[in-house]
Amino acid sequence: MITRRSFLSLAGAAALARPALAVRATQATPSIDAERLRNRLERLSYHGRNGATFADGVARVAYSVPDLTARAWLIDEIKGMDVVPRIDAAGNIFARFGGDAKQPAILFGSHIDSVPTGGNFDGDLGVMAAFEVIRAVQAAKIQTRHPLEMVVWAHEESTAFGIGTAASRIVAGDLQAGDMDRVWNGMKRSDAIRKIAGNPDQIETAVRGKGAWHSYVELHIEQGGTLDKAKVPIGVVEGIVAIHRYDVVIEGQVNHAGTTPMNERHDAMVAAAQLTLAVREIASRRQGRQVGTVGRIEIEPNSPNVIPGRATLSVEFRDLSEQVLRELGDAVKARGAQIAKETGTTINFTLASTNVPAMATPAIQDAIARVAERSGLKSMRLPSGAGHDAQQIAKLCPMGMIFVPSVGGISHSPKELTTWEDCANGANVLLRTVLELDQRDSI
Amino acid sequence: MITRRSFLSLAGAAALARPALAVRATQATPSIDAERLRNRLERLSYHGRNGATFADGVARVAYSVPDLTARAWLIDEIKGMDVVPRIDAAGNIFARFGGDAKQPAILFGSHIDSVPTGGNFDGDLGVMAAFEVIRAVQAAKIQTRHPLEMVVWAHEESTAFGIGTAASRIVAGDLQAGDMDRVWNGMKRSDAIRKIAGNPDQIETAVRGKGAWHSYVELHIEQGGTLDKAKVPIGVVEGIVAIHRYDVVIEGQVNHAGTTPMNERHDAMVAAAQLTLAVREIASRRQGRQVGTVGRIEIEPNSPNVIPGRATLSVEFRDLSEQVLRELGDAVKARGAQIAKETGTTINFTLASTNVPAMATPAIQDAIARVAERSGLKSMRLPSGAGHDAQQIAKLCPMGMIFVPSVGGISHSPKELTTWEDCANGANVLLRTVLELDQRDSI
Repeated sequence: MITRRSFLSLAGAAALARPALAVRATQATPSIDAERLRNRLERLSYHGRNGATFADGVARVAYSVPDLTARAWLIDEIKGMDVVPRIDAAGNIFARFGGDAKQPAILFGSHIDSVPTGGNFDGDLGVMAAFEVIRAVQAAKIQTRHPLEMVVWAHEESTAFGIGTAASRIVAGDLQAGDMDRVWNGMKRSDAIRKIAGNPDQIETAVRGKGAWHSYVELHIEQGGTLDKAKVPIGVVEGIVAIHRYDVVIEGQVNHAGTTPMNERHDAMVAAAQLTLAVREIASRRQGRQVGTVGRIEIEPNSPNVIPGRATLSVEFRDLSEQVLRELGDAVKARGAQIAKETGTTINFTLASTNVPAMATPAIQDAIARVAERSGLKSMRLPSGAGHDAQQIAKLCPMGMIFVPSVGGISHSPKELTTWEDCANGANVLLRTVLELDQRDSI
Repeated sequence: MITRRSFLSLAGAAALARPALAVRATQATPSIDAERLRNRLERLSYHGRNGATFADGVARVAYSVPDLTARAWLIDEIKGMDVVPRIDAAGNIFARFGGDAKQPAILFGSHIDSVPTGGNFDGDLGVMAAFEVIRAVQAAKIQTRHPLEMVVWAHEESTAFGIGTAASRIVAGDLQAGDMDRVWNGMKRSDAIRKIAGNPDQIETAVRGKGAWHSYVELHIEQGGTLDKAKVPIGVVEGIVAIHRYDVVIEGQVNHAGTTPMNERHDAMVAAAQLTLAVREIASRRQGRQVGTVGRIEIEPNSPNVIPGRATLSVEFRDLSEQVLRELGDAVKARGAQIAKETGTTINFTLASTNVPAMATPAIQDAIARVAERSGLKSMRLPSGAGHDAQQIAKLCPMGMIFVPSVGGISHSPKELTTWEDCANGANVLLRTVLELDQRDSI
């Protein structure tokens, strides 16, 4: 066993909540193998690749054949590190390594399922980087105080069953009667979970309590364009935004598009168009990073020669502040009432779903920022506009997230891209943050 | 045989293109039987009725079982008048009565197929009134100079196979290779036509040449609210509007609705909303009766949490003037180019279909107006914003259309309503117009 000088500066060590009593360190700053990281990302991409090249992106929807083959490959890779994988009842893959078995583990990882025309970095990077953390610790023969535990969350994308962060949600205790009976594409959720070697009949055994882990850190691509535009390689996530989603139903009057004069129409599509522009204006006019989107619309009867009598659409607002979300919702409902009056329609809003914001633990944010600085990497703080498994696990233990840039801010698309250099930087910051957190008994 | 004094005034007779040499007339103004007309409309409504009462409307889509049973009943009713029905290769039912067989017939009628949730007047009134014309002529023992010919056009609504005025279109010679092979709801069009006793293998025998009839007059509900609002019982149709329909494709950039700041979006739904409002504004701002509608929209991927990357929509303009239609199209394309620039999208317009306007023959318009006046009924001239079989038959002979009010302007709905009094007035104007036209060798 080699004891090491911590790569942390004295100032950094002084900032620890409780100074480490037994710092074991290699002499050099531990680092991941950038070439091996890239190689694993490329090999993962074969599972569900949408075309001949890596740049064609993947379709690796949860429970699909590519998801199954990728998981089998991951389990082999974990075994190849002489680590024993474990699959919980929800299908999440865990792999624990080293440390004092009496201590809670430090958890890190992400997911490998994708949207139907997805890219090669969303989720994938966090999982492949988790391998690197274990490999680097093994290579440097570091003995950590806490067990290190990598996780591959099952079913993160909301493509399958219309539920996002579905498997980490169960771990965090969000389990409703009937959840396992839900049907999607002719497949029952219990059968889907069986396909990935989960155990739907004892699904409650996947639930973990508060304090199940020492801490959780997830490396992920930003999916937005903030880091790329600012040319900053490391993002320190402040929290994961809350979402207020409204289902909106507009009722007008179906009528003949040829025989009804313009001023006698009650056109649900015209009202929907006005509401769409109102959402954009309301989300844009105030300071801050809130966003508002109309992403779904269906009109009836949806025929070129019939004035639409009904429109159903989604209005979604996201922000770190629930107060801001309530104000945005109130503003759009007020505008909706005006639009209804002007167009002779009725507009009804239903708050269909709300996600509370998940704030990243400040001490972990600070640790990530310090690690980045010591690694010679600029960092900036920013919210996550997308949902992540981290928002579920934040209910159980201290949580932090590291973002790396998405070129052009594009994600959920084969065009999703993070440079290999940024991937390696992110993985190194993950490794070093895990090692820094390991110095603390608690956070 | 009883000769009769024409019910036309001398002034009216003087206005005829060629004074009639042999005017045969009853002493009284011939009239239809309003009670019998109502009774037939009610009996027809049983074929496809959507609920227990007449007010529930009908589903009598072309080639459906209710269409078949209604046609069988109609054929019985025609035979009940001692008239021999004939079905052409397209499935149209003709019934010729009286007159000099060497003369071209005066044609009148409409259709009995409906949209899936239709009413009891669209088409039905014109057909049931055609029975009354024959019955009234028989009752008054009038010997007309020209044969009278009632017609029940098959397949008028565009519900079936997505084609409107489909059977009269064939009669007018619009027959393309492959038309009979078209498939809709798993049914081949040739098989559909066989169901209604047509002959798809000799479909070309349904085509009629120019001058096939002396003239064609169709009584129909307005389907718009102009007559109802003006409290005018008779509409003299000036023509059937032309339609320019554009398929519009908007390409933006699919992106994550949480991670993409408002000012970095290329949101195809926002562009579609702006275009929808532009269509309304462009159609509304000029004098005239032109209309513009966005009746269909599909967005992709149509998910609440994804910024729409693509929108396809229909833009339809209708007017009697093709020049006006071209100007409206140019205006919306110019606005589309601005919207594309502002939203960072591309917008492509394809002129997907154009219908030329079908002008009603001025001499028939004048005849209808005079008949209405002599019948003590106010009339007004107006365009037809909807398509009708009359627009096809206008290619073969002089054409006129009589409109009666639609309460509230509602049609293609179970709420479609024309009062029994207006139905009877319309049928009387049809009867008397046919008799006036009979006075002329040609129009």
